[in-house]
Amino acid sequence: MLVLSSPSGAGKTTLARALLQAESGIDMSVSVTTRPKRPGEVEGKDYIFVSQEEFSKLRDKGDLLEWALVFDYSYGTPRAPVEHALKAGCDTLFDIDWQGAENLTKTAPKDLVTIFVLPPSAEALETRLKGRAQDSPEVVKRRMAGASNELQHWDEYDYVVINSDVEESLRELRAILAAERLKRDRRTGLEEFVRDIQKKL
Amino acid sequence: MLVLSSPSGAGKTTLARALLQAESGIDMSVSVTTRPKRPGEVEGKDYIFVSQEEFSKLRDKGDLLEWALVFDYSYGTPRAPVEHALKAGCDTLFDIDWQGAENLTKTAPKDLVTIFVLPPSAEALETRLKGRAQDSPEVVKRRMAGASNELQHWDEYDYVVINSDVEESLRELRAILAAERLKRDRRTGLEEFVRDIQKKL
Repeated sequence: MLVLSSPSGAGKTTLARALLQAESGIDMSVSVTTRPKRPGEVEGKDYIFVSQEEFSKLRDKGDLLEWALVFDYSYGTPRAPVEHALKAGCDTLFDIDWQGAENLTKTAPKDLVTIFVLPPSAEALETRLKGRAQDSPEVVKRRMAGASNELQHWDEYDYVVINSDVEESLRELRAILAAERLKRDRRTGLEEFVRDIQKKL
Repeated sequence: MLVLSSPSGAGKTTLARALLQAESGIDMSVSVTTRPKRPGEVEGKDYIFVSQEEFSKLRDKGDLLEWALVFDYSYGTPRAPVEHALKAGCDTLFDIDWQGAENLTKTAPKDLVTIFVLPPSAEALETRLKGRAQDSPEVVKRRMAGASNELQHWDEYDYVVINSDVEESLRELRAILAAERLKRDRRTGLEEFVRDIQKKL
């Protein structure tokens, strides 16, 4: 379970998509949210869009691995797809905020690898936050405050990637994924493999 | 501090050299040993070759970070070059056996990343162990027993790399190095970097 967090506008979503395209054996966790769909967003791909009532029902039934309230809207991680992927030996990528990451850490600390994506500078972040033409100035202002708040949590993550260049950041994310897959306690069948070699020597 | 261990004949030394050639900011720790120089080995590059008396003196003066006895010969890690490299922000690669790795873990657990290199099969290992023409059959036999013993310690390492293909294994080692360098607790100056961004927002 690979978690990507960052302030809105640091390029996390672009990186997440690039990583999924570059790597096999890893799928995206699609969050449920009560926030309205933005133009261009696809139901079931970007988010599963639900009403507050539907959200509450999912939460109360225990169908969410974690959930959090961000800017008045609720966000959550459906439990079933993640558990299914893990059973199948497939990794899951989470594009969630620090609250989601913290909640996941409580739920499944052992399987979790967390990465914080930092913007290269305040200017780059501001440009990107203002660049979303569909948002009102008030929403932009609020998102700037939110970004500052999210930034505060960078030091709760395992890894930090500074997103100065998408290609370089993608290389870094792929290195983290590759290395984590090589960790001894994540590898299965090695005990038998080594015993076999020893027997034949 | 990156530690590579493996049974003799798994290709560790080739990999270590390839890694040093491919990466910057990492230097090899050259061990001192009382074992006689093999044909082709270079003093000061492959090992620092010393007498048992000289070795004991270094050890007793505290000039060795760790030391171990392997096949009747003593091997040790000079302390000064490692401390110098760490102070300069440079990584150090160690090509040492499980005893050396265990000793280093006791000395500097926080800075240590350990990798065990496994051979792809018993056959490959045997072929390589027999392939060293300069060694007598008795030495080969003894080294096979030693390899089997070294193999036993694979599960004390952070990462495991199966060396089926040198290029692929080199990619894996580079990924581990890159990922470890991205770990939050190894990065310096980030606190100030984030504070600067927050101020400007």
